[in-house]
Amino acid sequence: MADEVILLNYWPSMFGTRTMIALAEKNIKFDYREQDLFNKSSILLEMNPVHKKIPVLIHNGKPICESLIQVEYIDEAWPGKNPLLPSDPYQRAQAKFWGDFVDKKVYGPTRLIWGPKGEEQEAGAKEFIEMLKTLESELGDKVYFGGETFGYVDIALIGFYSWFDVLEKFGNFSIELECPKLIAWAKRCVKRESVAKSLPVSEEITKFVPELRKKIGIE
Amino acid sequence: MADEVILLNYWPSMFGTRTMIALAEKNIKFDYREQDLFNKSSILLEMNPVHKKIPVLIHNGKPICESLIQVEYIDEAWPGKNPLLPSDPYQRAQAKFWGDFVDKKVYGPTRLIWGPKGEEQEAGAKEFIEMLKTLESELGDKVYFGGETFGYVDIALIGFYSWFDVLEKFGNFSIELECPKLIAWAKRCVKRESVAKSLPVSEEITKFVPELRKKIGIE
Repeated sequence: MADEVILLNYWPSMFGTRTMIALAEKNIKFDYREQDLFNKSSILLEMNPVHKKIPVLIHNGKPICESLIQVEYIDEAWPGKNPLLPSDPYQRAQAKFWGDFVDKKVYGPTRLIWGPKGEEQEAGAKEFIEMLKTLESELGDKVYFGGETFGYVDIALIGFYSWFDVLEKFGNFSIELECPKLIAWAKRCVKRESVAKSLPVSEEITKFVPELRKKIGIE
Repeated sequence: MADEVILLNYWPSMFGTRTMIALAEKNIKFDYREQDLFNKSSILLEMNPVHKKIPVLIHNGKPICESLIQVEYIDEAWPGKNPLLPSDPYQRAQAKFWGDFVDKKVYGPTRLIWGPKGEEQEAGAKEFIEMLKTLESELGDKVYFGGETFGYVDIALIGFYSWFDVLEKFGNFSIELECPKLIAWAKRCVKRESVAKSLPVSEEITKFVPELRKKIGIE
């Protein structure tokens, strides 16, 4: 029996992008189902009753929630092609540490940057750049975060790249000036087919964010 | 060469408790080094320069940070005795989901409950009980979260048990009345030697929290 793989997602999500890239790296076909987060579908509520959030990966009827857990799951369920995590336990732990860092330290500031203007926005911009510099320092002169091979940490972070333009506009900074090596890394990543076909288009995110601000009543 | 295992911890931590239990389950001897979080040691700053937090597990000189990542690492680095995570990818993903749930949804409300009194405290108490009920519903009639075998999700949650008394006192609720099955589960867990010898003593946490409130200037 062929695998049935469904992804519930919302196109601008840097989290859903991770899961799409991981599936593409493994060459897994999936049924993409766009979700309306302002009017949640019964399938989303049924498949992720705890958090009620996208992305949800549904494999042969069974849901997996939380994007980094999905990436690990994809790597374990389809272990052959393009391993996403290293096999060495210590290297695995380091990859998970940096994936967790992106979730805990990078996402929060992005919300402040495009959120209500003022002090919070400035603090968010400062924090965001600082966190990117920490990541750039971890990247160092490597091709990808894991070394020569594209993998878990790259997948965890690259979804934010589509948001860089709009964050620069709202935050009044240049990421390339602050973190040139990180931008060079992002440009390497988007040359991969799995990334190129999964990332939201920057210009569309830049149009989307002001609309979102209106929709949630902060503009 | 024998493994050198060091744990940097602070005794009341529900996170450090996880790592201690996982090490005990694998029967790994370790050098416990108590840390002063108000005057951080050079070893802590060197071993966890990003978050500067305990617990830090140091295995043959190499640090692993973040308690759930440590538990996974311990399971992978010492795979023989007492597996902590299931081997099936889907079951592994489910275990990671609930471990992540504890970190994202249970810890925050506990800070509100013993923090400054007022509206936030009430909201924290309500949220905390609701999250415990979600966990109790996931536990259902199983012996442990993973079924018949003590493992990852049990380890993720049981460290909070030592804090239940003080949370009940500050939050003015009875966890046993609200979640009797969860309390029965906790009592089963503490019968395990690995848990009994790793958990902080409830009475000491109850003495510690008012002191901590004074120290951080909220009493």
